[in-house]
Amino acid sequence: MGQETERRFLVNKALWEQLEKPEGTLYLQGYLLNENDRNVRVRIAGDKGFITVKGTGEGITSLEYEYEIPKADAEEMLVKFRPAGTEKIRYRLPASGGLTWEVDVFQKANEGLIIAEIELEQENQSFEKPAWLGQEITGEERYANASLALHAYKAW
Amino acid sequence: MGQETERRFLVNKALWEQLEKPEGTLYLQGYLLNENDRNVRVRIAGDKGFITVKGTGEGITSLEYEYEIPKADAEEMLVKFRPAGTEKIRYRLPASGGLTWEVDVFQKANEGLIIAEIELEQENQSFEKPAWLGQEITGEERYANASLALHAYKAW
Repeated sequence: MGQETERRFLVNKALWEQLEKPEGTLYLQGYLLNENDRNVRVRIAGDKGFITVKGTGEGITSLEYEYEIPKADAEEMLVKFRPAGTEKIRYRLPASGGLTWEVDVFQKANEGLIIAEIELEQENQSFEKPAWLGQEITGEERYANASLALHAYKAW
Repeated sequence: MGQETERRFLVNKALWEQLEKPEGTLYLQGYLLNENDRNVRVRIAGDKGFITVKGTGEGITSLEYEYEIPKADAEEMLVKFRPAGTEKIRYRLPASGGLTWEVDVFQKANEGLIIAEIELEQENQSFEKPAWLGQEITGEERYANASLALHAYKAW
């Protein structure tokens, strides 16, 4: 299991698009379960599949259990269960101090939304903020992937 | 993924208790999600952990995706998410034709209930019925583990 300390930011689209960046990976994901205090996500990330259980309720926020599964299983579950989900292209950019920016460029019903995440070892850890970084949205419920699956950005 | 063809029977308690049988394995399991058309189960079986996604709705019945996970993760999920579940001791008995009887002796709120399952390759496949086998309950919703987790046998 893992405890995540993650900070999230909007990304300035114009600056982001000018950026030279590594190739992104297509992420398709759906929520088999999407309740107040937990969700179960099936994800295809490039040529890999994953199943993830996340705690989102009081006292269990940031519990996360992720397991790699055959991509074919993940595809089949997304087809058969038709769970509400999100589609995005994820870019991984190295940051100073051995950290990594994960930048998600959302597609389809969430097109126009770009979110950058950085995972920290401690809550008060400092990190460099690139020029393309916008407003902080850490903890803002409506930007959570599980929320975006149900209430898409384009419909806000 | 797997498609199961499974037949289920009640077990005659008196005959079962007289039977010489191999050692059973304690199963602790809880349902993170338990909806009409799907469930997500976390299970501890002896010294192993599993997460399983099952389809139970129209057209997806008998879809089953099971993955082994660290036992410590399974334990933690059962503690933290406190999902409704069942506890049972499972016995595996060889049957003729290379088949296996899995006999679940339920504990706690489902004590008194013993269910035998046999997994077949085809629906019309024949198999030997041991003397301790009782009434067939294949497809009977209330005997499904996911149902027993919510509506325990002792309270019927």
